[in-house]
Amino acid sequence: MPLVERFQLDLPLIQAPMAGVSTPLLAASVSNAGGLGSIGLGATDADGARKMIGEMRDRTPRAFNVNLFVHRTPRPDPVREAAWLETLSPLFARFGAKPPAALRSIYKSLADDPGMLAMLLELAPPVVSFHFGLPPADMISALQTRGIFLMASATSAEEARAIRNAGLDAIIAQGIEAGGHRGMFDPASRDDALGTFALTRLLAREAGLPVIAAGGIMDGGGIAAALQLGAVAAQLGTAFIGCPESAADDAYRAALTGPGAYHTVLTSLISGRPARALANRFTALDNGAGGNVLPDYPIAYDAGKALNSAAKARGEYGFGAQWAGQGAPLARSMPAADLVQTLKQELARSQSALHPRSADEAE
Amino acid sequence: MPLVERFQLDLPLIQAPMAGVSTPLLAASVSNAGGLGSIGLGATDADGARKMIGEMRDRTPRAFNVNLFVHRTPRPDPVREAAWLETLSPLFARFGAKPPAALRSIYKSLADDPGMLAMLLELAPPVVSFHFGLPPADMISALQTRGIFLMASATSAEEARAIRNAGLDAIIAQGIEAGGHRGMFDPASRDDALGTFALTRLLAREAGLPVIAAGGIMDGGGIAAALQLGAVAAQLGTAFIGCPESAADDAYRAALTGPGAYHTVLTSLISGRPARALANRFTALDNGAGGNVLPDYPIAYDAGKALNSAAKARGEYGFGAQWAGQGAPLARSMPAADLVQTLKQELARSQSALHPRSADEAE
Repeated sequence: MPLVERFQLDLPLIQAPMAGVSTPLLAASVSNAGGLGSIGLGATDADGARKMIGEMRDRTPRAFNVNLFVHRTPRPDPVREAAWLETLSPLFARFGAKPPAALRSIYKSLADDPGMLAMLLELAPPVVSFHFGLPPADMISALQTRGIFLMASATSAEEARAIRNAGLDAIIAQGIEAGGHRGMFDPASRDDALGTFALTRLLAREAGLPVIAAGGIMDGGGIAAALQLGAVAAQLGTAFIGCPESAADDAYRAALTGPGAYHTVLTSLISGRPARALANRFTALDNGAGGNVLPDYPIAYDAGKALNSAAKARGEYGFGAQWAGQGAPLARSMPAADLVQTLKQELARSQSALHPRSADEAE
Repeated sequence: MPLVERFQLDLPLIQAPMAGVSTPLLAASVSNAGGLGSIGLGATDADGARKMIGEMRDRTPRAFNVNLFVHRTPRPDPVREAAWLETLSPLFARFGAKPPAALRSIYKSLADDPGMLAMLLELAPPVVSFHFGLPPADMISALQTRGIFLMASATSAEEARAIRNAGLDAIIAQGIEAGGHRGMFDPASRDDALGTFALTRLLAREAGLPVIAAGGIMDGGGIAAALQLGAVAAQLGTAFIGCPESAADDAYRAALTGPGAYHTVLTSLISGRPARALANRFTALDNGAGGNVLPDYPIAYDAGKALNSAAKARGEYGFGAQWAGQGAPLARSMPAADLVQTLKQELARSQSALHPRSADEAE
């Protein structure tokens, strides 16, 4: 059964998981208000994830989505990592700090985390979504056996095909506008950088699975447009960063309403994988700076987080991972429940504001 | 008066000008079928443009649009141009040819072409659109005095602001999906690469002028989505390349239905300005190859066209400027009048296929 009907959503809205920004409080508020709230489990371990799912269930009787990172296992490479730290050391020095002595892979891929899988199978959250790729077939079938609705992000027709072939229930069409990490299965592959408009329409017509549009969608008019492109729902992330229930810090909230919102940047330097952020000191570094030395995701992210900590300790907030999509200038700051209500009303208005002239005259 | 009403269009559709691909026959067929057909005058001189406008008037009593390039005057730089030809010479050699001895600027900017302006003022085509920037204020007011509806492409909020400040009638929001040349006023400036979805919604909400969405729009569902984003019309280019009335050669038509359609590439190497083309031999060259030696647009284009001629003479069609947008896999091949009718019917169906559940339940 399609997502909206199966989970009795009041509107075809998914609040994007956004690990580190979304919270169980935010996600539960969205679910309670009639959308599908999401939390990101990729940045925590099975115990932390268990607590977050527990908190979701305490806060809402409705369906919710949990997102897992399924990146390829990073290849530790001490020489490359040392070279990257060397590259960053002048920046650390500017804040009176030294780079860490070594870097580690800070997030486990679900594919490498049997404990996380066991926890998911035990707690059976209603919806599980994958980012950066797909887990092995046996993990997928185990989750399906528990009745879990499965989705994964695609940035291309090829990735969409892989998702359909793996037997999932829906595809999240992640356009180039989207904030945060691009879901590309292989970050070293050529990125066709498909926009949300083109990708959504292409997958809705060709992918053979329900499509959820993501990237640059900020209001009810945007949701209505996504539905016209053939999507069954829209996933909005940046629209929810400004909600008081998100975990965004003050600097991030301030940046979201600043001039950087008009100039988001896709950079690999923060984490080791391409991701879109508000223009700040970190994104201003030349992407070429990574050269051949940028460590694998998420090993590079260990360095990025350390640099941000060092900068913050000296009052410089411009090295944060302030992820945001190209719709950032349209972000609003209101409680999540109010935002969902607003989106619902805007969507209804958009859908009733037909263009009768064109509709009548055709045929 | 808004575009659709003023020119009594049967549907909110502009066929994109596409210099070298669009023809008066194609554009007139679109206008006769109820859309707004466009021809590109940027690649011809005032005499050639006069003939094209005459042919339009012979073929249709309805409104049409003529597009002018308004790029900055290129700076000839014999040293840089020689270096670029040197870079390309192994490619020429592969086809038994030599690069031209020197390069010239093959297209005049309207801003540098008083003869073109005089012709436009004399013939007063109903709609004039500008690409790559805006002409001087006195040219704009002269055209307005003749009652011409004026539009210009914007790829960012800043460019949209400039268009509004210049007193034009509408903005073409050109998203990153779009085929052909990006309309950026300054190709050396940072390109935020806004997707059609994000850009259209942003400009519709903030620009204070009617917005026409362009980039990745291929069918009636796409037009409906553009309207939901607040656009007053959609401009489709790639959708019309396959029409028999276009000037696309057989190799271009074949490429449009080949695997390259799924992998369009933004490259500056063909012309000296970023433009999106079907993946082919030319786009496979590393964009870095231009380095510091790529001549200004359109001087570099003289070399690109010479290379294509040399390659074609040896049966290699992969160096053509096969412009196309990211929606290319959805291109169709049918007479323009049929395509316009099809789009009209698809649009009507999309607009009547409301999502009553969401619409009813809101409020």
